Amino acid sequence: MHTKPRILILTTGGTITMLRNEDGTLSPCRDAGVLLECVPELRQIADIDLLALANIDSSNLQPGLWKSVATAIYQRMDEYDGFVVTHGTDTIAYTSAALAFMIQELPKPIVVTGAQVPLGEIGNDGHVNLINAVRVATSDLAEVAVVFGSQIIYGTRAKKTSVFDLQAIVSVNEHPMGDIGLFIKFNATPRARNSRKPLLQPCLNENVARIAVYPGFKPDILEYLVRVHDGIVLEGYGAGHIPTETNSLVPAIKAATARNVPVVVCTQCIVGSTQMEIYQVGRDALEAGAIPALDMTSETAMVKLMWVLGQTGDMVTIHSKMQKPFVREIHPLS
Amino acid sequence: MHTKPRILILTTGGTITMLRNEDGTLSPCRDAGVLLECVPELRQIADIDLLALANIDSSNLQPGLWKSVATAIYQRMDEYDGFVVTHGTDTIAYTSAALAFMIQELPKPIVVTGAQVPLGEIGNDGHVNLINAVRVATSDLAEVAVVFGSQIIYGTRAKKTSVFDLQAIVSVNEHPMGDIGLFIKFNATPRARNSRKPLLQPCLNENVARIAVYPGFKPDILEYLVRVHDGIVLEGYGAGHIPTETNSLVPAIKAATARNVPVVVCTQCIVGSTQMEIYQVGRDALEAGAIPALDMTSETAMVKLMWVLGQTGDMVTIHSKMQKPFVREIHPLS
Repeated sequence: MHTKPRILILTTGGTITMLRNEDGTLSPCRDAGVLLECVPELRQIADIDLLALANIDSSNLQPGLWKSVATAIYQRMDEYDGFVVTHGTDTIAYTSAALAFMIQELPKPIVVTGAQVPLGEIGNDGHVNLINAVRVATSDLAEVAVVFGSQIIYGTRAKKTSVFDLQAIVSVNEHPMGDIGLFIKFNATPRARNSRKPLLQPCLNENVARIAVYPGFKPDILEYLVRVHDGIVLEGYGAGHIPTETNSLVPAIKAATARNVPVVVCTQCIVGSTQMEIYQVGRDALEAGAIPALDMTSETAMVKLMWVLGQTGDMVTIHSKMQKPFVREIHPLS
Repeated sequence: MHTKPRILILTTGGTITMLRNEDGTLSPCRDAGVLLECVPELRQIADIDLLALANIDSSNLQPGLWKSVATAIYQRMDEYDGFVVTHGTDTIAYTSAALAFMIQELPKPIVVTGAQVPLGEIGNDGHVNLINAVRVATSDLAEVAVVFGSQIIYGTRAKKTSVFDLQAIVSVNEHPMGDIGLFIKFNATPRARNSRKPLLQPCLNENVARIAVYPGFKPDILEYLVRVHDGIVLEGYGAGHIPTETNSLVPAIKAATARNVPVVVCTQCIVGSTQMEIYQVGRDALEAGAIPALDMTSETAMVKLMWVLGQTGDMVTIHSKMQKPFVREIHPLS
C-alpha cells in the first residue's frame, strides 16, 4: 500500500479504555477518543477512524455483541484496510472466536486486543498492545487475530490464562501465528490479503451451557442443564473423561442425545486434545453420544456450538460440523 | 536415618498401574504388585510395603476415597518413615489437596504421584516419577507433596494443565517446594521432619457444586445449584468477576447467602488471585456476599469448601476459614 493504510478501531470497553477513580477502582467511563489521546503515534502508522460499539466491562458481555461487531466490520469491509477491536481481557477469547466463525473468507485482517492495565497508567500494556494491533491490522494478513503481549494468536486459539501476567492471553494448542519482539515476525502459515468476498454468518443459538466435571458431580446437574438448553459443553477430565461408575454421567448423556441436545466433551486442561477412545471413561461417553471437542479450547467449543446450532438442529450435521475445522479451531487427530 | 527407611506405597489405580490391551485401550487391571515388578530399584532406596486401597480410573474418583487414604495413612503414621500414594492424573490435584487438609501437623512426608504413560511402556514417565516420589518420601520433609516430572508441588498447589505433556501437573501460584533435575533440590521453605502429633480431620460435606461463568450464563443455573447444594464454587472471570447487568448473578448470590449457602468465587484463569474490589463486576459480587477464593486453585477451593462445611454451617466461620491459610493453599492479599 503506497498511501497510508486506513484502519477502523471498534471499541467495546474493557480495561484498556477504563479510568481509575480516586478510590483505586476502575470504571468503563472514558469514551473511545482516549485511544488517540493516549496513543497519538497511531496516526503515524495509519489513518484511524473510531467506532464505539459498546463501553462495558467484558465480564458483562453477552453473545449478542458478537453479531454487532461482526456486522459492523462486514458492512465496512471495503472502506478500510484492516480492523482493530478493543476489548476487555475477561472474555476476549470468546469474541475473537466468534468473529472468526461469523466472518469467514476474510480478505483482510481483524485484530482484537486489550490490556491488563489501562491506557495512560504508568507501566500499562495497552499502549504497546494497541500500537502492535494497528501494525498487524496494516500487514499482509487475512485472519482474525488476537494481539496481546508478545503473541499474535489465531482468533480461535486464544485463552486468558492469567489474572496477573501482562501476557494474560496465550495461544493454546497451536503455535502463535506470529511473534512480537524487536519486530513483528509472522510464521509461514497465516493467510495473506486477497480479493475474496467475505461470508457473514452471524446467526447464533445462544442457549448453550458449559460445566466442568469434578469429584462428586451429581448427574442431576447435567440432567437439569439438558432440560433448559439446546446444547451442552461438558468439560471432562484429561482426554475427555467422565465419571462412569458412581454418579455416572452416561445415562444423562444418552438422554440428552436422544432429545437432540448435543453434548460436546472438551478437556478441562489447558493443553492437549480429547482422545476419548483410549480409556473406558472416555469410550463410555462416546458410546452414549458425546461429541469430542478434540483440541478446541472450551471457550471456542462453546462459541462454535452456538454458531453451529444457529444453522441447524440436525444431530448428524451438528456432529459433523463440530468435528470439521473451519477457522483453525480444531486439529483432527491423525 | 541409618537403617533403610520404611515406605508405604498406597495404590488407588490410575494410568501408572494400568495395562494396555491388545486394541490399544488402557484398563486398571494390574494389581499393586506391578510397581515393584516394573521398578525393582525401589528396594534399593527403601523397604517398601504396598497397600492397595482402590484400583480405579481417577475420573471415577468420589470424595469418599480421600477419607480412606487419609485414615489409612494416619493409622500407620508411626510404622513408616514416609508415604507414597499412586493416583491417576485426572483428579490427583483434588486428592493431594484433600490429604493436606485432612492430615495437618504432619511429622513426615506424604507424596502423591502418577504417570501419563503406564509403567513398563517404552518412554513411560511412571518409572521416574515413582522413584522420585519414594526418594522425596525418604527425605527430610513433613508436607503433603505431589511429585510429577521435574516438580515437587505443595499438595494444595497442584493442577493438571496438560493432557499432552509429561509435565502434566504443575505448581500454581506458588513456586514448587522443590525441583528434580540431576538431583533433588528443595527450596528453603518446606517443613522438616518433626515429632508433632498429626491431626486427622477427615470429615467432609461433599454436597458442593462448581461452575464457571461464560457469556450468556443464565442466573437460573446458579439458582438451581444453590437449591440442591450446601456450598458453591463459582469460577468467575479474571480477578473474580461475574455478570452484573444482563443475566446478572448478583440476585442469585444474595439469595444463596441469605439461605446460608456460601458462594466462593475463584478465578477461571490458571495464574493469579481474585481481587474483587477493583472492578464493579467484582465489588457487586462481594457486596452480595460472595467469598473470594484469592489465589486458591478451583480444585483446592472446592475441596477446602467441602472440608470447612464438614466442620461448620455457620456462615461467619465459613467465611473466615475460607480466607485463612491452613496448608499453604492461599496467600492473603497484602
